[in-house]
Amino acid sequence: MPAQALTDFSRLCVHTITTKPWSIEEATDRYAAAGVRGITVWRQWLDGCDVAEVGRSLRAAGIEIVSLCRGGFFPATDAAGRQAAIDDNLKAIDEAEALGAPLIVLVCGADPGQPLEESRRQIADGIVAVLDRARGANVRLAIEPLHPMYADTRSAINTLRQANDMCEQIDSPMLGVTVDVYHLWWDPDLKAQIERSGLAGRIFSFHVCDWRTPTEDLLNDRGLMGEGCIDVREIRGWVEENGFDGFVEVEIFSNRYWAMDQGEFLEKIKEAYLMFT
Amino acid sequence: MPAQALTDFSRLCVHTITTKPWSIEEATDRYAAAGVRGITVWRQWLDGCDVAEVGRSLRAAGIEIVSLCRGGFFPATDAAGRQAAIDDNLKAIDEAEALGAPLIVLVCGADPGQPLEESRRQIADGIVAVLDRARGANVRLAIEPLHPMYADTRSAINTLRQANDMCEQIDSPMLGVTVDVYHLWWDPDLKAQIERSGLAGRIFSFHVCDWRTPTEDLLNDRGLMGEGCIDVREIRGWVEENGFDGFVEVEIFSNRYWAMDQGEFLEKIKEAYLMFT
Repeated sequence: MPAQALTDFSRLCVHTITTKPWSIEEATDRYAAAGVRGITVWRQWLDGCDVAEVGRSLRAAGIEIVSLCRGGFFPATDAAGRQAAIDDNLKAIDEAEALGAPLIVLVCGADPGQPLEESRRQIADGIVAVLDRARGANVRLAIEPLHPMYADTRSAINTLRQANDMCEQIDSPMLGVTVDVYHLWWDPDLKAQIERSGLAGRIFSFHVCDWRTPTEDLLNDRGLMGEGCIDVREIRGWVEENGFDGFVEVEIFSNRYWAMDQGEFLEKIKEAYLMFT
Repeated sequence: MPAQALTDFSRLCVHTITTKPWSIEEATDRYAAAGVRGITVWRQWLDGCDVAEVGRSLRAAGIEIVSLCRGGFFPATDAAGRQAAIDDNLKAIDEAEALGAPLIVLVCGADPGQPLEESRRQIADGIVAVLDRARGANVRLAIEPLHPMYADTRSAINTLRQANDMCEQIDSPMLGVTVDVYHLWWDPDLKAQIERSGLAGRIFSFHVCDWRTPTEDLLNDRGLMGEGCIDVREIRGWVEENGFDGFVEVEIFSNRYWAMDQGEFLEKIKEAYLMFT
């Protein structure tokens, strides 16, 4: 059963990278003015900022911080690289704590110089290495399975089944999954794996956009909801039937949209959110 | 256990599209002179030709015809489109019979205007609609699962598990699978699904190339074996342990390689075949 249309913006979250030309200050003001109620902050937006102050400004503007994007990238062919990744994830947890973000999204990583199985072991080891600190900071971690076209360098976790398997293996209430329609829409196993995630209470966040035909760039040609072939509303129905009632996060990487007036783009996002999400 | 290195070219097959600038006559001569023993003919290369004559010329040159590429593209949102696809597949079977190709590779198709589940039903229906004719012509059909990045328009069958499921459902000795490392390398279920295909005697063909980092084009940036992150030899080991002893087919779409001297490219293919396949 598809979900009902969303009728207001109380669950709308936008990722700072979606409106990439805007600084964090600009995003704060413009999201607030547009009635966007949630934000996911990409770490680059915090460079050189007083992170706690950014958090206070966002809350003062009535915007809830949904997550910090992104941790992960654990695999490396050498031990020094793997330790550097762990250190960086510990730093991300510090930032999330200072910002007041309850969740870090993990783009788990992959290294094309080693087998995927090895990268997957290193991902599990990396998560385990930072879990205590995450618990101490009360910051949850979400494995975001990435589309298989990113298996060479971005993530060796490419299906929700793999993410669920890893969550079961590690077995911590601090660890769950992010369901992103762009990465997972093609998978015939998706509905069943969302049910499995839901039963375990581990659907921590939900990302939307659309798959355009033709897709002209592997990274930066995502579409607005309704612009492509993904039945976003159906997948939202699946996560909601399985207990998820959090923010619906619009995460669009798009050279086309980044080139346009971001205020107009934000209005398009709001339209697409009501009509197709 | 990885396969042993290949030490001669007795199982080397090249797809006509790999050396796209060459006509079928040129490919025949150049492959024969280079010691390439097998060819997979893409249908465009037969346009305007006497197909039976092409087959005779290839055999006279000592080249075995491994398969005809490609049938499929069954889904369409309207009945007329689906019938046109079936008609075109019947024509492809005629061509394969005239050419003397024992196999047609199916790129099954998808239509972004309908759910993947619907496209999958139409694929099964389309295959069933042409199976009798395939049997009569003694031309086998192989479902080639395509990478999930092609799920919008090229194939709603994106894993070997799905291809195996569909083969079991249709249950005909004329129907099997093509294992292409480019499409399937990322799948943690690949080895198990190759075993399943092998047990059923349905590994009909095997395609190789590599996944480059970065991949700059969704279609035409495939690499030579050894140039990317796929362990081609390991996957060849899996298909061979499961009964496959046919040609190793080099299928590379690459704007870079098509721009170079095709004779030099063919020598590079032979080197990569011995070293990394």
